[in-house]
This record gives sequence, structure tokens and C-alpha cells, in this order.
Amino acid sequence: MNRRQFVAGLAAAAWAGPGQPQINGARLRDHLERLSVFGRPQGGTFADGVSRVAYSDADVAGRAYVRGLMDAAGLKTRLDAAGNIYGRRAGREDSLPPVLFGSHIDSVPNGGNFDGDLGSLAAIEAVQSLQEAGLTTRRPLQVVVWQNEEGYAFNNGLAGSRAAAGHLDPGELDGVWNGMKKSDAIRKIGGVPERIAEARLPKDAFACYLELHIEQGGTLEKSGTDIGIVEGIVAIDRYDVEIRGFANHAGTTPMPERQDALVAASHLVVAVNDIVRREPGRQVGTVGQLNVSPNVPNIVPGSVKLVIELRDLSSNKIAALADQIRMRAAEIARQTATRIDIRPAAHHDAALATPEVQQSIEAVCGRLGLKHQRLPSGAGHDAQMMALIGPMGMIFVPSVGGISHSPRELTSWQDCARGAQVLLQTVLTHAA
Amino acid sequence: MNRRQFVAGLAAAAWAGPGQPQINGARLRDHLERLSVFGRPQGGTFADGVSRVAYSDADVAGRAYVRGLMDAAGLKTRLDAAGNIYGRRAGREDSLPPVLFGSHIDSVPNGGNFDGDLGSLAAIEAVQSLQEAGLTTRRPLQVVVWQNEEGYAFNNGLAGSRAAAGHLDPGELDGVWNGMKKSDAIRKIGGVPERIAEARLPKDAFACYLELHIEQGGTLEKSGTDIGIVEGIVAIDRYDVEIRGFANHAGTTPMPERQDALVAASHLVVAVNDIVRREPGRQVGTVGQLNVSPNVPNIVPGSVKLVIELRDLSSNKIAALADQIRMRAAEIARQTATRIDIRPAAHHDAALATPEVQQSIEAVCGRLGLKHQRLPSGAGHDAQMMALIGPMGMIFVPSVGGISHSPRELTSWQDCARGAQVLLQTVLTHAA
Repeated sequence: MNRRQFVAGLAAAAWAGPGQPQINGARLRDHLERLSVFGRPQGGTFADGVSRVAYSDADVAGRAYVRGLMDAAGLKTRLDAAGNIYGRRAGREDSLPPVLFGSHIDSVPNGGNFDGDLGSLAAIEAVQSLQEAGLTTRRPLQVVVWQNEEGYAFNNGLAGSRAAAGHLDPGELDGVWNGMKKSDAIRKIGGVPERIAEARLPKDAFACYLELHIEQGGTLEKSGTDIGIVEGIVAIDRYDVEIRGFANHAGTTPMPERQDALVAASHLVVAVNDIVRREPGRQVGTVGQLNVSPNVPNIVPGSVKLVIELRDLSSNKIAALADQIRMRAAEIARQTATRIDIRPAAHHDAALATPEVQQSIEAVCGRLGLKHQRLPSGAGHDAQMMALIGPMGMIFVPSVGGISHSPRELTSWQDCARGAQVLLQTVLTHAA
Repeated sequence: MNRRQFVAGLAAAAWAGPGQPQINGARLRDHLERLSVFGRPQGGTFADGVSRVAYSDADVAGRAYVRGLMDAAGLKTRLDAAGNIYGRRAGREDSLPPVLFGSHIDSVPNGGNFDGDLGSLAAIEAVQSLQEAGLTTRRPLQVVVWQNEEGYAFNNGLAGSRAAAGHLDPGELDGVWNGMKKSDAIRKIGGVPERIAEARLPKDAFACYLELHIEQGGTLEKSGTDIGIVEGIVAIDRYDVEIRGFANHAGTTPMPERQDALVAASHLVVAVNDIVRREPGRQVGTVGQLNVSPNVPNIVPGSVKLVIELRDLSSNKIAALADQIRMRAAEIARQTATRIDIRPAAHHDAALATPEVQQSIEAVCGRLGLKHQRLPSGAGHDAQMMALIGPMGMIFVPSVGGISHSPRELTSWQDCARGAQVLLQTVLTHAA
């Protein structure tokens, strides 16, 4: 399907009208609560969050539960070689590329019960509600639950969707992550690591990829907005920084003689924060990791290693910010008699959401009377991998307090149901 | 002996004249090189430094070597209950309080071959040269090699001299340091931990305590000065600081919403450095230890713990600096939406060198034609404990590059011999 055909298809989509299928919000909540027990802290409740790290026993158990829900919703389920769970529902014109939608159910350690879970279970709920309404779409539908989205270490997450997008180097599977050889980990969840190349989706594998997700930031809640329409997933640049001064006795080294790597690092952390904030826009810049050596109270720090991370929808913008940071670092190095090396460590391109898909979500929100706004996604999502293959769109619902990757992660049940309803109707738009 | 008697004694001291005993610089060097093998890194040379941590096998072996040198110099050696090595040489008026002088031979891990070693072996060399000159002093002489000066953790060092000054709580020996119960450690070096109270020296136990030491800073070398006359050992204040912000996703948390504990900590590190530097004087202030939580690149830091250390001869001055730092911290907390708690963790009083002892060292330098200057000791020394009991003085020799607690710690052999000669002649002054 080329772009013209895609746009033409959208225009032809008729709205279901008053008899349209409805999400069952109570059932969605029940499923989220039931899924939350897999990886729940000993003796805890739903509010204590979840540690359902990819490839853990809790992940395996959670995946089995979710696949059972997919089967019950009438989906024909299968695992691909990477261990992603697919569930297919036939369409009236079943040879057409399907609408693909879903998310993930793995979590960070001590994470929450909405990140990934909501998008996965809302996708199943959408199909369940179609099933109950006895409605068959023109295009087939394909629900997907990606494996290992979180990874919580750079280039380790998005494993399932990277395999589907052909962006997972098979050599990567020889590596070890979280104490497990990655190939063994994929085998543990039912994948076939030696055939992982077969997990790659061809071009035109889907008409459109849709993902519902919690915002993980506080923008929607702050502005009282029901639904966020994602403009794209930001580009990320990471820099490994090493600052070398000279470790010396903190009692005997006069202040003017010091080459204090931590004083230099502190100036740099302040500079990153200032430089990123003084530009207009939604870019963010973070020093999240910083290690001092030798790190004892009575020795002037000899070296510091830290990581600078910059994110924005525009790669050019964060490259320009990095240039400013580099210039300031050179000044700091001179002023503190230290050496500061800044090395690019990783670059992730931005993944823009398809404009027509954004418009279709917007139209659904309009019909449902939901307050909506466009915003970038500062976090990475499986959707960014699908954007490499075909049209992509993401739907955000508010995160209370903007908190995520925490047991305190929370989205109201009403917002969960609203998001699921928008997902369902956007799926119908694209499946028509 | 009261202060008047002490001063009168000094005035009566006759100078030895041209036939005065001379330090043998070659022998002192030989002894330093021979001591350096105990704790030397496998396959290393003198230049690779030493790890002769207190109570280690290397420490035990080094102590046996040094006690042998003391015996050979005609000293009558014994261990006290704390494991300090004393060596006595009779005086013409042997019932008078002796002149006490020495240092330590334990090192920090990966330390150098001069810190402590020079003062200990120069003390023995001084006695050896008196022996060879057939010279007997009026007062008896007492050489001491203190156990565990370094400790390299607050309130763990100066163990032997603290016991001698009655500043070691016997309950401390139930604690564990460096993997060993402290009482077992003292037993290992030949002490009797259950009788440690007997190691306490009475008032008037010595006429004067003298210690030769490397400067460990770069002041003498920079000014081309041969000998430093220590004005006192600085007071030290340590503060434990905890900064609490809020850990959140580095991609999804807009800059204005952040409560970044590391940004706050960085402002504070810069403030400590600025506040300490902008006052005239020789005070120093250091943040040597800083730990970030959760310390991963893609999470806005939720909390930071750090230690502020301030040193100066004046306790009032560092208290005033701490007040300025507290005020600035309150501003930083407001500006960064974090909470900053600053708790006093430790206070060590300054130990001033006795003015008359400083003058006697100065007089010796004058007679020997050595360039000298007064300066504070930024590092702690056993001498600070002896200052609690009686008159105290310290002699510093230059450290090349101001480097210490490092294999690169270095003092020229000429400076070692000069320092030993000043020690010898100052001992003679006070023993006359």
C-alpha cells in the first residue's frame, strides 16, 4: 500500500454510529488487576507496583495469562521466533494487510501497573468488544504483545519490536542481559533464537500500527487534557563524559593547587541544565548517572564519569545543544585545570507519527467529545520501530503526577477506558 | 614540669657546636628502601609505593624490621598494651621526663614510602648517630612507632596515639575495621587489648613530643623552602548532606517539572568551593564523596548523598564557613524544589604546636642555614594526640608535587636527611 492508497482508505472510513462497539471499562480494569499479580512484591497490593522484568518467571507467567485473554477474545494466537505474541482476527477482506495494535507487558524493576499493560490489555479489550458486538472489520486485525520493551539498559529494550523491524543484530543474542544469555532468554519465553531473522516483518505487513500508552509525564494531567496524540518519539543522544583531575589529600592540598574533578563535573551538570532550559521548546537534558573516584571524604576527587542524555523530536536541535555543552565544557576544563572528554555513546533517531494517523485519532477524540492535544513522546516505545516499516500512531492517556517507572505510576480507570475507546475507534477507522 | 620550667629548660640548652652528631643520609635512605619491601606490590620497585595497611601481614613484618633497627641503635624496646613500639635511651639524669619522638610505619592502600616511614626511621637514625658520637643527653630519649595512624576511615586512624592520649574508648575495640575485629587486630601486632587503658601516658610523661613528617602538600616545594615548622594541626568538620528530589523518567519529565537532586548537589559542590576560596587564608573545603540514586542515565536523580569536609587551624572560621554553606544550600533547595539536609557528622579540634617548640625548630634551621617557614598541617598526625598531653612540635620536609597517599609520593633524599638533621638537633635542644 502506498501513501496515496493509505490516505484514500482513511477518507473512505465510515463512522460506526450510535450502535458502535463499546469498551467494557470494568472488564479492562479487572484484567489489569489480574495481570498485576504476576511480579507483585511479596505481600503487596496493586498499589505496590510490579517487577515483571522481561524473561523473568513473572514475565513468563504474565505472558501466559495475556495469551489466554487473547484466545478468549477469539484471536488466533501464535509466537514469532523472537517470542512476540501475535493474535489475529480475520477481516471481511482477509488478504488485506491488517491493522496492528498492542504494546508490551514487561516492566522495569519496581515499576507500575500501567506502562505497557494498559496498551496490551486495551488492545485485547477492543477485540473482545468487537467480538461481542458481532462486528467484523474489512481488514483483518492483529494484536501484538511485544517482548522486552523496557530492557532498562540502552540498546537492550525494544527487543521484540526491533526484531520485527529488522533492527536486531543476531550477534546481539550472544550477549548477556540481566544475568541471562539473550538467546537463552528468548528460548525461555518460547522464541527460537536461531531463527530470529524470521521475526522480521516485511514492508506492507500492516496497514497501520497503533499503540495506546500512558503519557509517563505530567503534561496532559496539568492541562486537564483527556487524550494525547503523539507527534513522534524523540531522538536521543547520549554522551559518555570523563573528567580527569588529580586525586590528592583533602587536608594538605591548598585550594588554588587543586584539580578537582568533581568541582568540574558539578559545573558541567549545572551547564547542561542551564543550556537545555534556556532554549524555548520541549527538549530535555539529563545527567542521571555520575560516579566519583576515589569517592572518599578526605581525598580531592581525581576523576568523574558521567552520562549526558539529550532528547527532542529534532535531532538537529539536540546536536546544537551538545555543541553548546562542548564549548562550555572546554571553558570549565580550563578554569578547573581538568581534562574533559565528551564521547558520543549512542544516537537514536526520532520516529515521527504519521500525520494522517494523528488526524484520525484527533477525529475520533472530536466525535467522542474528548479534550485532546498533540505532544511528543519523551520516552521510547515499540511504536518507534514500527514507524520504520509503515504508518504509525500513538494515543496517550494522563499519568497522575507524571510519575512512571515507579510503583506510584497511576492512571485513573476512567482514563484507561477512554484511551481504550479511542484505540478501538481508531482501529475501526483504519480497518474499514 | 610546668610551662615556666619548660621554657627555662629551653633557654639553658647549650648548642653542641662543630663536633655535633651528624645524620647519616645514606643509611637513612638504605633503611627507607629496606622498609619499603614490606607491602610492596608484587614485582614492583620502590617507585611503585606500598600497601602496608595497619595490622596486615606486611605491617607486622615491617614493624619487626623497624624494631630490629631500634635494637641495633641501642634502644631498649618494648610494646605497650596498644601495640605501639617504644625504644628508650637512658639520659644523664635518667629520672627526668624523656624527649619523645617518632611517627608511624603503616600506610594507606597504594600509598607511598615516606608518609610516616621518614619520621620513624629518622628518629631511629638520630639515636644511631648519637650512639656513634658517644653522646649522652641529659634527659632520656624515647623513640615511638605508633600503630595504625592511617586508618583511612574517620575515627579509625591515630589508634596508637589515641590510646596513649586516653582518647580511645575501649568499646571501640569490639568494632570491625578492614575485615578484622579491632581487638584481634591489636593482638595480632603484639598488643593486649583487654589492658589497653594501660597504654595511656600520664601527664608529664615527656618533656616534649617531636615528629618529622613529609608535608603532603605542595607549599614548601613551591616556595623553595627546606623545612616547614608546623603551627598546628587543623580542625576538621565533616557534614553528611542528603538531598532529596524526585526520581522520574528522563524522557517524559519536562525541565520545569523536575526536582533533580543532582542538579541541586552540583550547585552545592560549586558553592562549597566558591565560599571556601573567596575568604583569605589557608582553609580548605572538599566534597570528596558523592553518591547519586538511582544513578542510571535515563532517570532524573531522586536523591544524592555527599560529604562536606572543612579544615582550618581555627574552628570558628570553619564554623562560619559552614554557616555560609547552609544559607546557600537553603537557596539552592528553593530554586531546585529539593530538600537539603546538612547534619554535622564529626568534629576534630585543632591541635596547636607549642610556640616555644616552634621557636626551637626555627633556631635549629637558622643554625643549619636552612630556609624555613611556618605553616599549618592540613592532615592529621599522631602529634595532635600528643599535644593533648604535653609540648608538641612538628617538622615538615617538602613533598615533590605535593603528592601524598599515592605511590607517586616523593621527598628527595637530601630533604629526608635535612629533616632528620633538624629533628636530631631539635631533640638535642629539648634533651639538654
